[in-house]
Amino acid sequence: MISRSPYGDEFRYVLDSKTENKKINNFINSGKKTVVVQGLGFVGTAVVAALADVKDKKNNPVFNVIGVDNPDEKGYWKIARVNLGKAPILSPDENLDIIYQNAFKNKNLMATYSKYAYSKADIVVVDINLSVTKKLGNPFKYDFTYSAFKEAIEVIANNVCENTLVVIETTVPPGTTQKIIYPIFQKIFKKRKLNIHKLYLAYSYERVMPGRAYLNSIINFYRVYSGINEESKRKTKDFLEVFINTKDYPLFEMHSTTACEMAKVLENSFRATNIAFIKEWTDYAQRAEVDLFEVIEAIRMRPTHRNIMLPGFGVGGYCLPKDSLLADWSSAKFFDGKKHLEMSLNAIAINDLMPNHTFELLKQKVGNLKGKHITILGVSYLNDIADTRYSPTQYFYDKCLKEKAIISLHDSVVSYWQEKKIRINTDINSLKNKTHEVAIFAVRHSEYSAFTSRDILAILPGVKVVIDANNVINDSVAKELVWSGVSMIGVGKGHWKCLGRE
Amino acid sequence: MISRSPYGDEFRYVLDSKTENKKINNFINSGKKTVVVQGLGFVGTAVVAALADVKDKKNNPVFNVIGVDNPDEKGYWKIARVNLGKAPILSPDENLDIIYQNAFKNKNLMATYSKYAYSKADIVVVDINLSVTKKLGNPFKYDFTYSAFKEAIEVIANNVCENTLVVIETTVPPGTTQKIIYPIFQKIFKKRKLNIHKLYLAYSYERVMPGRAYLNSIINFYRVYSGINEESKRKTKDFLEVFINTKDYPLFEMHSTTACEMAKVLENSFRATNIAFIKEWTDYAQRAEVDLFEVIEAIRMRPTHRNIMLPGFGVGGYCLPKDSLLADWSSAKFFDGKKHLEMSLNAIAINDLMPNHTFELLKQKVGNLKGKHITILGVSYLNDIADTRYSPTQYFYDKCLKEKAIISLHDSVVSYWQEKKIRINTDINSLKNKTHEVAIFAVRHSEYSAFTSRDILAILPGVKVVIDANNVINDSVAKELVWSGVSMIGVGKGHWKCLGRE
Repeated sequence: MISRSPYGDEFRYVLDSKTENKKINNFINSGKKTVVVQGLGFVGTAVVAALADVKDKKNNPVFNVIGVDNPDEKGYWKIARVNLGKAPILSPDENLDIIYQNAFKNKNLMATYSKYAYSKADIVVVDINLSVTKKLGNPFKYDFTYSAFKEAIEVIANNVCENTLVVIETTVPPGTTQKIIYPIFQKIFKKRKLNIHKLYLAYSYERVMPGRAYLNSIINFYRVYSGINEESKRKTKDFLEVFINTKDYPLFEMHSTTACEMAKVLENSFRATNIAFIKEWTDYAQRAEVDLFEVIEAIRMRPTHRNIMLPGFGVGGYCLPKDSLLADWSSAKFFDGKKHLEMSLNAIAINDLMPNHTFELLKQKVGNLKGKHITILGVSYLNDIADTRYSPTQYFYDKCLKEKAIISLHDSVVSYWQEKKIRINTDINSLKNKTHEVAIFAVRHSEYSAFTSRDILAILPGVKVVIDANNVINDSVAKELVWSGVSMIGVGKGHWKCLGRE
Repeated sequence: MISRSPYGDEFRYVLDSKTENKKINNFINSGKKTVVVQGLGFVGTAVVAALADVKDKKNNPVFNVIGVDNPDEKGYWKIARVNLGKAPILSPDENLDIIYQNAFKNKNLMATYSKYAYSKADIVVVDINLSVTKKLGNPFKYDFTYSAFKEAIEVIANNVCENTLVVIETTVPPGTTQKIIYPIFQKIFKKRKLNIHKLYLAYSYERVMPGRAYLNSIINFYRVYSGINEESKRKTKDFLEVFINTKDYPLFEMHSTTACEMAKVLENSFRATNIAFIKEWTDYAQRAEVDLFEVIEAIRMRPTHRNIMLPGFGVGGYCLPKDSLLADWSSAKFFDGKKHLEMSLNAIAINDLMPNHTFELLKQKVGNLKGKHITILGVSYLNDIADTRYSPTQYFYDKCLKEKAIISLHDSVVSYWQEKKIRINTDINSLKNKTHEVAIFAVRHSEYSAFTSRDILAILPGVKVVIDANNVINDSVAKELVWSGVSMIGVGKGHWKCLGRE
């Protein structure tokens, strides 16, 4: 079988548990505690690095770390990369690769697909995904199921020994640890004739931020945790203190795992709602020919208003577009909620459809898109991050495609757009040979925001309309482009209507 | 005629412009600049104090300050109080009364109803109200009219001289200065044969906070301003710099008065929306038996989430319940908005109806309220502030009354509830002689939050149910009350359901 990573490397593999288990036995060769991290995705990658890098006073690694992922096309390449001393996820944070290399040399890190790993664990950290399927723009209709997640928990319950600490980090519907995970352990421990009182179960969520401070956002940031009982809390505290800088970022212990799970989805819903809030003001300011960025800058002077969000192209990533749905599901199914979390879900819908604002500006300017050459600059959901999950560009791209526009794409960091299976040339000069009528700056990649008007005219020869959907271009560059005969439209930049009037 | 203040003083008066104008002429007796403040309400009171208190290097007052209000039952007592050396609005900020006394002695402050004052002004500051009539819970239907506001502006335009600077501080629908106020001046100046280019017109909004730092919130806080032209901006800057601590709180100049007006309503809409956001999570956490205060404390560790709001009883005061409506009106009428500012208006509705949450908790516990003795502690909209405008207690009180409950009221600072025309005994011991079955802590007055369980039992003899609607009572006091046989219910305190189960 073959597993391909998004970075171009390919791995052939044959499943062979016996060899795999021997590897594990050979790996566990010291008095170190063993931590098994389930899930080598975005969070697991950083957690593994944080754990593998912890050293004692003699500069020896504190933990044996085993990363576990699935032996399939989507999972195997992560395992293979770790066992070659590479981080599964590519990141602009250089620390990550260095740590994976060092751990490979130090032999305190391996990855496997074998369930046998859990039997060797002192601590298991759960970092798998728990997805929800939603309809863009209508988050009141979503599908959610625990099945894959439950299976993953069952694998742990069927393999761990007594006295293992299991720490859930996955974002879950609040109540999951108490109502889903703990009962699985109860049932399976009973079957296995293990003492359920010797299971330590906790919930603690990370606040990983992509980008250059990827690893840092695990180690140097506030952590919240709770456990199903006092002993679980205590053990979790001891564990977190080993790899988190709790001196500068004190731990916050909560009374219940449900409260802790709620904190995670509430903080993301809060942020998503704050982003959605600014949408109607963006429309309004556009009509009023007001520079909404200036307005927000004025408002942000107030310490209580510093997090008011800026207008933009849309919202993406793995958390904000879905976490409110997990809360809504929990409210209805676990806690007898008769009504939806309406404001939080409406915010999700507003954010889903936010690219429509840019699309409408485009239509107002250009009319029928059929056969028009449209250049979209930016495919990822966040500036300088090669992550395209729930990227707003996808929604926008699909709309343009439906109207039969001829689309050119560029992104500074995404060379392969997984969701669309499109290869992208990250060299900005590759655009020079193409035909441009309208260009959309969708993502504030640092490459783009450094452009002068001369750069833009050189890169996009013949461009007639430039739409800045994400505050990429500043007023003076915009003015120069207007002088050069380009029509400038900017989301949140109603005042650009006056450019060139003087 | 008689004018009665809410603090018990009465003033008889006869309108006599001649005497009034003589007083003004006698008052303007020096080389000082004269500032006329139109409107002696909540903002005007503080602005007058800030201006009257400015001293030059020789410790002499810099401005002659004239406060203007209407010669009617609602306005005259303010004028009379100022001319007796008293602040029109009572406030816990002691600086205010001292400044009014000193200005009285220094003779650099007077108040009048005479329009003649404007003719003596170098600067006019507009601090009158601009209200909107709304339907509680349905902010999509509101009535708004400029008529009184326009008349007030016309009075200024008909009386000021050329070279006067007029600074609008009233919260207005964005666009008002450009589209309403400036045209009034254009028309009237033409009629008066004055040069409109010698009118300086600006918008600058205050961020006054009630309470002990009332005056301080004018002087020591960030200010935003703009003017209809560069000269108006410059003159406004010079004026603001005289009485605001711009060294520590730099001024923020905006490109247009419309942008500046928008900043004011946007910042208040943002706050109102953030308050509304937490409502559905309060319901949810209540059902999940989660302590939402603990959850929010955990979330507030993140610098980006520090302003996530707490659950509570409701939202009141003069700004948050209405400012989004002014924005919505502007969007529709000035800037061709086809849709409402839906999220902002929905937030207003959620906040309007927030006391329903407490009311439902009450009904769940008590059932039919007919003939039940209900004690409501707190009538003002904010802790330790004697301001009852849009107070959530009013909505709650009306609902209880409609169900024929027998209501006892207390408030630590409000001795007369204007909207309901009810006298309130602020002595907490006055409750001891009354019958209590259910007590609602509606406002977090510091008197209440200092109560021990013993205090509560002594003050409310016989009370069976205590509902804490505003985080007044802490967990240990609640526990003691449960031990004493009281049923405890708390908004956002779902975990109290578990009290006494141990």
